[in-house]
Amino acid sequence: MSDTQGQVRRGYVRPLDLKHGCVDLSHGSGGRAMAQLISELFAKHLGNEYLGQGNDGAVLPAPTFGEKLVMSTDCHVVTPLFFAGGDIGCLAVHGTVNDVAVMGATPLYLAAGFILEEGFPLADLVRIVASMARAASEAGVPVVTGDTKVVERGKGDGIFITTTGVGVLPAGRVIGGARARPGDAVLVSGSLGDHGVAIMSQRENLRFDAPIASDTAALHGLIAVMLATGADIRVLRDPTRGGLATTLNEIAGQSGVGIMLREKDIPVKPAVAAACEFLGLDPLYVANEGKLICICAASDAERLVAVMRSYPLGCDAARIGEVIADTHHFVQLTTAFGGKRIVDWLAGDQLPRIC
Amino acid sequence: MSDTQGQVRRGYVRPLDLKHGCVDLSHGSGGRAMAQLISELFAKHLGNEYLGQGNDGAVLPAPTFGEKLVMSTDCHVVTPLFFAGGDIGCLAVHGTVNDVAVMGATPLYLAAGFILEEGFPLADLVRIVASMARAASEAGVPVVTGDTKVVERGKGDGIFITTTGVGVLPAGRVIGGARARPGDAVLVSGSLGDHGVAIMSQRENLRFDAPIASDTAALHGLIAVMLATGADIRVLRDPTRGGLATTLNEIAGQSGVGIMLREKDIPVKPAVAAACEFLGLDPLYVANEGKLICICAASDAERLVAVMRSYPLGCDAARIGEVIADTHHFVQLTTAFGGKRIVDWLAGDQLPRIC
Repeated sequence: MSDTQGQVRRGYVRPLDLKHGCVDLSHGSGGRAMAQLISELFAKHLGNEYLGQGNDGAVLPAPTFGEKLVMSTDCHVVTPLFFAGGDIGCLAVHGTVNDVAVMGATPLYLAAGFILEEGFPLADLVRIVASMARAASEAGVPVVTGDTKVVERGKGDGIFITTTGVGVLPAGRVIGGARARPGDAVLVSGSLGDHGVAIMSQRENLRFDAPIASDTAALHGLIAVMLATGADIRVLRDPTRGGLATTLNEIAGQSGVGIMLREKDIPVKPAVAAACEFLGLDPLYVANEGKLICICAASDAERLVAVMRSYPLGCDAARIGEVIADTHHFVQLTTAFGGKRIVDWLAGDQLPRIC
Repeated sequence: MSDTQGQVRRGYVRPLDLKHGCVDLSHGSGGRAMAQLISELFAKHLGNEYLGQGNDGAVLPAPTFGEKLVMSTDCHVVTPLFFAGGDIGCLAVHGTVNDVAVMGATPLYLAAGFILEEGFPLADLVRIVASMARAASEAGVPVVTGDTKVVERGKGDGIFITTTGVGVLPAGRVIGGARARPGDAVLVSGSLGDHGVAIMSQRENLRFDAPIASDTAALHGLIAVMLATGADIRVLRDPTRGGLATTLNEIAGQSGVGIMLREKDIPVKPAVAAACEFLGLDPLYVANEGKLICICAASDAERLVAVMRSYPLGCDAARIGEVIADTHHFVQLTTAFGGKRIVDWLAGDQLPRIC
């Protein structure tokens, strides 16, 4: 036991300076400073009965017999950390809640791992954790366990957050990228490209007349409403990195089908379209954080679109194309001018660190 | 669709150069380069039926009715990435398997999130992922889902790995930091400080006559053997960051008890003790990655120690102290010379980025 340890032993421990203080290496050391960061910051905002157990892992009620578990994980490295419409904190909740929900599962629990850079302002950490707590509470999915590590200045970038979600899937429900078949309809829940363009305009310091905000949102409520219709939903997926184009290419490959889109039916906000033009981006490749793609039996499509439109997060839902037989597994687009083009995978790195 | 995208469209895609290649930003973009990294590297080593589903989340068999879930997450930022006895890959598996196992649960599934720095050698990534795969396979706990992000050069430090584990706890089993009571015995499964000293000697470029290797290992097998004895096990915990001292202080606080240790009974390898002397470290505060603390009913202590010793990972198990009544919740040590000292929380940052 060193002298330094002796000096603070059992003595008065100053509360964290959450206004002007910074993260230092001791906050990741496993000792008293870390315990203080957890109790005065993380537990204060995220606290719940599970997180409060204070053990190496959280003990949680298990789902009922006969159901399946769904597990998903996502690292969040978005820059800037704060952007129009959200921040890395709520994004880390929404992203993982959505990844669990698009499997048709009800998200139950989140785990959160924080990698902090030495010198990161505690005030920013408070904003991020509070935003995370708000998003988790609104979604009804508690953060039940967590971990914090600190790396030296210059060895990280402020904060990275990895969230992992666990959910429960009712017996017999099978939704997945391999289930699309020719004749199915392709739906989207709303306009495309909002998140990526919000991030990019902020990075490039662009101002537009109509401000563009990220669409970051938890989609499990919308998905529950869609599933409750009893419609034959084959695939659900949230088109994040790589956007609609990349996600549909993945699905086409998994299902062994082609997809034919109608450009005129794909919802893109005029401001987003204009910004994309300016930034040299194609909205079909730009990330979304609060939108979903749904592939369903054609006979259920109109009914599903109507239900989605009755729900705020789906108010701009649209039927944008069809699944076709195609041994090349191409995604194609009928352009507004009546031509056709292939919508390929994103090849390069259109937008680094978008989520 | 840009020209660059057009050029590689449907054409021949060169395999990754796993010997001389490096991670670049496109490997985190969600497009074709990322799909290639996943199929040629991650899936090749870690592949299993769940990871192979290729959706946003993995669908998994749920545990049986009446059991509880345990969930735990850990970020791994250890430096150096490769050290005597292990590397960040196997460490990321062992660390999370152990956090689930010390709750008394059987670890079932792992999720893995990778944050890679642009320029990180693919050859190192292969070594790490292969080591992870070996550790997961040996532990019988598959990596069922994952995510990869890439940050720009200078915004990370090679590789960070966050693993999250899910396990199942039999109905009625309650093990946790709040269950120690006066009279209980304190056991450790083996010698202390090996991991931290292995890391620190490598960082400081020290060579000792007897090489010191990390003890990184998965403890769920040992724990299963201990639980099978039917002994009244109140607390299990793996003393990682902050070492034995910090972990016991946590437990003392959670249970509202004191703990009295006997220095002479605490196993520390002579080489580790010598290295600690040289490096100015106290082995009681140094991290372990393959050791556990067990607090159990005194009447079961000798039987448990005997069982632990019959198992390779517990061959140096020892009874090192007792739980006592103490309203201050002190951890104390009877020294080899017969004196007493308080073993306090780790206050500063003894060893940054040890795991």
